Amino acid sequence: MTRTDTGTAATLDERIHRDPARFRVLSGDRPTGALHLGHYFGTLHNRVRLQDLGAEVFVIIADYQVLTDRDVAERLDATMEELLLDYLAVGIDPERSVIFNHSAVPALNQLLLPFLSLVSVAELGRNPTVKDEIAHSRQASVSGLMFTYPVHQAADILFCKGNLVPVGQDQLPHLEVTRTVARRFNERYGQVFPEPEALLSVAPQLLGTDGTKMSKSRANSIALGADADETARLVKGARTDGERHITYDPEGRPGVSGLLLLAALCLGRDPHDVAEEIGGGGAAALKRTVTDAVNTRMAPMRARRAEYARDMGYVRSVLRAGNERANAIADATLRDVREAMGGLGQGLAS
Amino acid sequence: MTRTDTGTAATLDERIHRDPARFRVLSGDRPTGALHLGHYFGTLHNRVRLQDLGAEVFVIIADYQVLTDRDVAERLDATMEELLLDYLAVGIDPERSVIFNHSAVPALNQLLLPFLSLVSVAELGRNPTVKDEIAHSRQASVSGLMFTYPVHQAADILFCKGNLVPVGQDQLPHLEVTRTVARRFNERYGQVFPEPEALLSVAPQLLGTDGTKMSKSRANSIALGADADETARLVKGARTDGERHITYDPEGRPGVSGLLLLAALCLGRDPHDVAEEIGGGGAAALKRTVTDAVNTRMAPMRARRAEYARDMGYVRSVLRAGNERANAIADATLRDVREAMGGLGQGLAS
Repeated sequence: MTRTDTGTAATLDERIHRDPARFRVLSGDRPTGALHLGHYFGTLHNRVRLQDLGAEVFVIIADYQVLTDRDVAERLDATMEELLLDYLAVGIDPERSVIFNHSAVPALNQLLLPFLSLVSVAELGRNPTVKDEIAHSRQASVSGLMFTYPVHQAADILFCKGNLVPVGQDQLPHLEVTRTVARRFNERYGQVFPEPEALLSVAPQLLGTDGTKMSKSRANSIALGADADETARLVKGARTDGERHITYDPEGRPGVSGLLLLAALCLGRDPHDVAEEIGGGGAAALKRTVTDAVNTRMAPMRARRAEYARDMGYVRSVLRAGNERANAIADATLRDVREAMGGLGQGLAS
Repeated sequence: MTRTDTGTAATLDERIHRDPARFRVLSGDRPTGALHLGHYFGTLHNRVRLQDLGAEVFVIIADYQVLTDRDVAERLDATMEELLLDYLAVGIDPERSVIFNHSAVPALNQLLLPFLSLVSVAELGRNPTVKDEIAHSRQASVSGLMFTYPVHQAADILFCKGNLVPVGQDQLPHLEVTRTVARRFNERYGQVFPEPEALLSVAPQLLGTDGTKMSKSRANSIALGADADETARLVKGARTDGERHITYDPEGRPGVSGLLLLAALCLGRDPHDVAEEIGGGGAAALKRTVTDAVNTRMAPMRARRAEYARDMGYVRSVLRAGNERANAIADATLRDVREAMGGLGQGLAS
């Protein structure tokens, strides 16, 4: 591949395609429930794409962080098993990618203290994403955990020296804290960390069956693990409107347009085209189209999911192996950090 | 021993004397420099007393926390060796007490995330000790580490289920955060932690050779490791005043009174009595008295210190053994915490 004649710098996407092995991707989920189609088109699909291009993908199950807005971590093991099945089903390949859970990697949290020393309280308080999450939190007051969340995220990313982080627009301020931590650490102690780049998600936001954002907590989502019948039932119950002729109009007709977008994503087509094709067929035809599109697109993943579910011993071994690898990397990074910081706690007792 | 006839609850001191083995004491130092006589009479002496009574004493070298107000952790290994020598010299017995350093006990920091979720930003911001430390900090802005410091201290104390913490008056608000964290954790997840009690220091504050608080950072202190000649030189250079007749008047004559207090503590006498004895002997006689008192009191400790310094291999092995014990305890506590929190991160990959 050659550089463009104009001499402009290559875009991030061009650089990834040119040399994918240069990139270590950090991405993950909080284990708050089963993943759904919004996750698939929003992020999972992209992780698999990067993995298949040749980037090294780390998938963190952020089990400690469920405490940031849930009072009790309920049914965590069961939820984590569902997550693992989802990852394997969509094509995360444990031979090439690393799936691990936060609380199994102690060295990761060891980074918190030096990192917390590199950001000010004023900076933490200014973070708009934290402000927003605080506003939507179920907790009465803002906890210290919520307040320091961007620093925890910096540890999640930098422990493996991740240099590419797929994010939505709303996550950019968080990533900026990670970049700040990496830059200040390097300036103060010497080069240890990359300043990770944001890979902005280009997927439009998927709406749920009630016409609002598809979300685990709003009971409006189609889980990756749902079967064909359940999918049909959920789509059938989706909110549409009284107008028979189907058009794609996200502002004016969120319910209908959400379904169109879902079908379009599954079919790899433009939602306007899908709408035109259905035309006067009305909500019933739209829902048949959506159900077929989802079920066809998801069928191979669902088959893989069911297959893995019959061998939970293997599924658990994937997490065990991922944790081993993540721990080895975290320990190496911690050694680098301590060496850079002048042998902090290292020499005497080892 | 019997209860008092009045039926009032036993004081903490009575309870400690009655059943010392019930108490696990957590105390420690930040490795920012050699310890001095202010530390000895302020806290070290008390740790040895509690140890000799039969309480289990944990001494933490808070090496990570030097980052809270120092930009770079300088010469840390050398400082930690000095600390170890000081501990052994004053009589901390590694057969009965546990000396360990913070950064060598990873499970301790694992407690930070659940603990941070139990306190609010408002509570952290209200803490007067943090406010004060912020005002005296060398750093331009308040770091996230400084802000969350009381939660780190809660982890330092609760990792070993410490239930007795010797503190100065100024540290009481910190300990209150630890008590809050323990209480809320127990209320939410079930009984795991004690609510540690404060053992308020009764020793009067020792002044340095310049008549202000004896402090490592003010170059006005007599180190535990100083020899007889150095002690004589430091006392000789101490600030007194023009009045020949020696009286104990901490308000009006801080220099003279600081020296009198130091002599009195070393001799186990009342500073007024020491002053009366010197009377018209003036500053020269006072300084001779102080030098003799310090050198006599410290002689056996200095001899022990010199002896240990000839076997640094042993000294380092003390820290290694302490770290092993602290790690075993921290791992057990972390298991209790995770079990209480519903198996957080525990079941799947183990």
